[in-house]
Amino acid sequence: MPLGGVEEIGSNMTLIKTSNEDILIDCGILFPYEDFFDIRYLIPDFSILDPSRLTSIIITHGHEDHIGAIAHLISDFPHIKIYATKFAHNLISKKLAEKKLTCQYHLYHSKEELRFNEITVTPVFVNHSIPETHGLIIIHEELNWAQLYISDFKVDLTATHEEPIDLDFIRSKLSPYKNTAYFLDSTNVLNDGKTTSENELTKDLKSILARDEQRVFMTLFSSNVSRLNTITKLAVESGRKIVLMGRSLFTYMEAAFETGHLELDPSKFLLADQGKLVESKILVLLSGCQGDFLSALRRFSFGEDSNFKPQPEDLVVFSSKVIPGNEKKISRIYNKITEFGAEIITASDALIHASGHPGKKDLELLITAFKPDYYFPIHGESYMLRKHKEFIEERFPEIETQVIYNYHEVHFREEGIKVEVHPPLEPVLIHGRGTPIEKTQISQRRKMATQGAVFISYLKKSNTIQISTVGLPLSAQNLLPQLEHRLLKLINETLYHRQEEYFIDQVKISTRQFYNNILGYKPVTEVHLY
Amino acid sequence: MPLGGVEEIGSNMTLIKTSNEDILIDCGILFPYEDFFDIRYLIPDFSILDPSRLTSIIITHGHEDHIGAIAHLISDFPHIKIYATKFAHNLISKKLAEKKLTCQYHLYHSKEELRFNEITVTPVFVNHSIPETHGLIIIHEELNWAQLYISDFKVDLTATHEEPIDLDFIRSKLSPYKNTAYFLDSTNVLNDGKTTSENELTKDLKSILARDEQRVFMTLFSSNVSRLNTITKLAVESGRKIVLMGRSLFTYMEAAFETGHLELDPSKFLLADQGKLVESKILVLLSGCQGDFLSALRRFSFGEDSNFKPQPEDLVVFSSKVIPGNEKKISRIYNKITEFGAEIITASDALIHASGHPGKKDLELLITAFKPDYYFPIHGESYMLRKHKEFIEERFPEIETQVIYNYHEVHFREEGIKVEVHPPLEPVLIHGRGTPIEKTQISQRRKMATQGAVFISYLKKSNTIQISTVGLPLSAQNLLPQLEHRLLKLINETLYHRQEEYFIDQVKISTRQFYNNILGYKPVTEVHLY
Repeated sequence: MPLGGVEEIGSNMTLIKTSNEDILIDCGILFPYEDFFDIRYLIPDFSILDPSRLTSIIITHGHEDHIGAIAHLISDFPHIKIYATKFAHNLISKKLAEKKLTCQYHLYHSKEELRFNEITVTPVFVNHSIPETHGLIIIHEELNWAQLYISDFKVDLTATHEEPIDLDFIRSKLSPYKNTAYFLDSTNVLNDGKTTSENELTKDLKSILARDEQRVFMTLFSSNVSRLNTITKLAVESGRKIVLMGRSLFTYMEAAFETGHLELDPSKFLLADQGKLVESKILVLLSGCQGDFLSALRRFSFGEDSNFKPQPEDLVVFSSKVIPGNEKKISRIYNKITEFGAEIITASDALIHASGHPGKKDLELLITAFKPDYYFPIHGESYMLRKHKEFIEERFPEIETQVIYNYHEVHFREEGIKVEVHPPLEPVLIHGRGTPIEKTQISQRRKMATQGAVFISYLKKSNTIQISTVGLPLSAQNLLPQLEHRLLKLINETLYHRQEEYFIDQVKISTRQFYNNILGYKPVTEVHLY
Repeated sequence: MPLGGVEEIGSNMTLIKTSNEDILIDCGILFPYEDFFDIRYLIPDFSILDPSRLTSIIITHGHEDHIGAIAHLISDFPHIKIYATKFAHNLISKKLAEKKLTCQYHLYHSKEELRFNEITVTPVFVNHSIPETHGLIIIHEELNWAQLYISDFKVDLTATHEEPIDLDFIRSKLSPYKNTAYFLDSTNVLNDGKTTSENELTKDLKSILARDEQRVFMTLFSSNVSRLNTITKLAVESGRKIVLMGRSLFTYMEAAFETGHLELDPSKFLLADQGKLVESKILVLLSGCQGDFLSALRRFSFGEDSNFKPQPEDLVVFSSKVIPGNEKKISRIYNKITEFGAEIITASDALIHASGHPGKKDLELLITAFKPDYYFPIHGESYMLRKHKEFIEERFPEIETQVIYNYHEVHFREEGIKVEVHPPLEPVLIHGRGTPIEKTQISQRRKMATQGAVFISYLKKSNTIQISTVGLPLSAQNLLPQLEHRLLKLINETLYHRQEEYFIDQVKISTRQFYNNILGYKPVTEVHLY
């Protein structure tokens, strides 16, 4: 039963229920899908989880949409064991340490059989865009069922920086079973072709780094360690010193170093205040390729970084793609950099970004290697899930393909499958230091954001009124004496002797009408009466 | 001097200054480029305009980014004359009537010479995506200067629903002059090819409308009257009754009917409450292809329309593109429709949308017809302007190409050009019923939206405190008794006899600290003291 990750890209979390034990796969965050005003992220509602049955969580890889909510989970369920590879473990344990949480780990390796009460789970290495990503082969011997669950992957058979996905192993593991099912990634299913290999990027990255510009700035997804290795190696070869800017680059570089994934000695990297003094050629790596408000890239692009500002002689390279929803933030960055005169190269101009998700040809390769009986598109928005299903049905009509959404429960029986639909729980909005905030409260915030606020207090004894406004146009604020006059008149003529509740209501109504007549909208109004 | 429209797509407005008269081209709105909380649009700051010199405004076409701010302009400068074609005039005069404004018009036709004191302006018909779009040929005989200014166009030489752009006329008008300049559209310059002709869409639209589904829903840009004609004609041919939903469809249909652009008798169209009763095949046209919050398409997609809700047997067709920035709103609509089970066809699945803006090949055709001495990319964001310039420089190195931004003033002299840079004025934010709101006030709103608000009043005489909160998480609201205790303690122990200003400040600081400790952020706090 997926608790997140189907219907949306993010908050990936799937519940495996066996007769005497529950096991989770992943526990990620979802970035807001509409304007919730600085809400940091959404997480699945954990209230459906049963602490007496939940024993374990298996982590497929270290991306935030798979591990980002784990501190919330462990604080609610401190007894469960986390199964992860060493890279994901490194990221998770630091996350938990920040919240002063600890927990029990099992560090798994590829092809290790993780034995639970009723099922065995065998992680199988897959290509993706962060080290040590795994799919899971879930086997229930008694029911004669084998499933392959890969939320994020691509097929990179020519990979040199890592092993290619082992299709033979997958086939050999699944073949013995009577019933088989695939749960596969829908993120990139609108791409009809084959996803680019990381190796194919070397040529263009190399020629960019070999250019004459003294300063090359480059942004990428910080968790893509293999890309970081490629870029930093090419930069050194082209005689560039490497400067790092941005917290998430340091986070992933540190994890990569500590787990043996970093090829270059990190002591070779410079900080921004050292890098700005270098007169020879440099490569400045910046995090924030999605244009996040406080990111190094945005600070730099807007000319707000104290060490580096864009100059006409600079080259700024986006070795990344635009995640849907971030188009406008990123165009503003292109525009700002252009206004400073620097040149921009994006993945539209050169082959410098490869997705980590499967195109249709990648999916075909996996299905051709072993054809399952059942097929469930996961990791995608509803529209993508449907497109994924339509593709599989057309290309492999012999497979029974079905779209499931969050809180749909797929029962695996010896005789086949049954899907049971449960009412979905709303995801929980997390703000500030990790506190949930209710949607009702967000809607109060929305009212203040779109209509401003007015605070009024009135002391009967002295017939005194005070009015404060927040977020009203100055033209309306200048009308405060008029509003005061209107309210005092209303109070003295009709409200003075009325009950408190009625009094307050009428003052609110009159205030909101006053502004509505002028502005066409009604500010949030609070009234205190003494 | 552009006052808007270069650096951004929107708020198109260009000032032509002659020695004794100022003339404007267009007066459009810009949609918010970042989150301004329900701000309706931005307009250029008119304070740079001189009422004693400004005599006229020439409108190129009726899109909102060219006429949307005209009511604001006429209310500030009621004496100026509007030059427009009958279609744009129809839209503008209704806009002004809503605000009870009137003004003087000159209805121009193609190739008419509009004579001003020093210059002559000849409108030349161009292909675009709304009827009667014109470029302007601006001639200053004395200075021997001719300019071609086309903010929005494409080259559609095979157009049948309208005249193709008349390249011969442009050449013949510009050729006699010593100095010539182009000002051309950058919107679609990242497209290396030729923009699709409206005619090419007929095939796929026809086969979609001929499908078996009883109900086909289709959305498009409401102002694209020629597309409306094509679609409604094909729908009738395929035996479908036509239902209209959405205010902007009615606005443009009415204008098209009144100006003779509508091919079908509008009495043939049904309203939604009639259309829902039809049992034969129907086509429901919906406005809101960009997913706007209150649009017909969004209401329908979310299952919130009382007449039509998506059903599994329905076909929903997007004869439109996603304007950058609207990706997430539109994906949500795709997802909602998919969750209802209906099928979706977009411009990625079939050739059912054509841009109204020139690709590189369109620009080439215009430049090949007549090669100007000077060239200025307009109508685009800074990044596009630069890409446009780079393309022209590479393809036509003999032309002097230059990027100008808003408030750059290009002086045309007999001996050539000179560009003077002026500090740009910030655009004005328009909210509610048309009232400007200051950025400082928006930032107050942002604080309330992201951190909530607390309103406190205190009556010394009775040592009574009242606290209201708006938009705080319920977990924090439950702590109000604690906050009250803390504030009363502070007041009674240290503040009671202090001056009002200090008293209020300390109560604010203590309140904000209280919440910061719990939530990690500080609500906006207002305090009244009696």
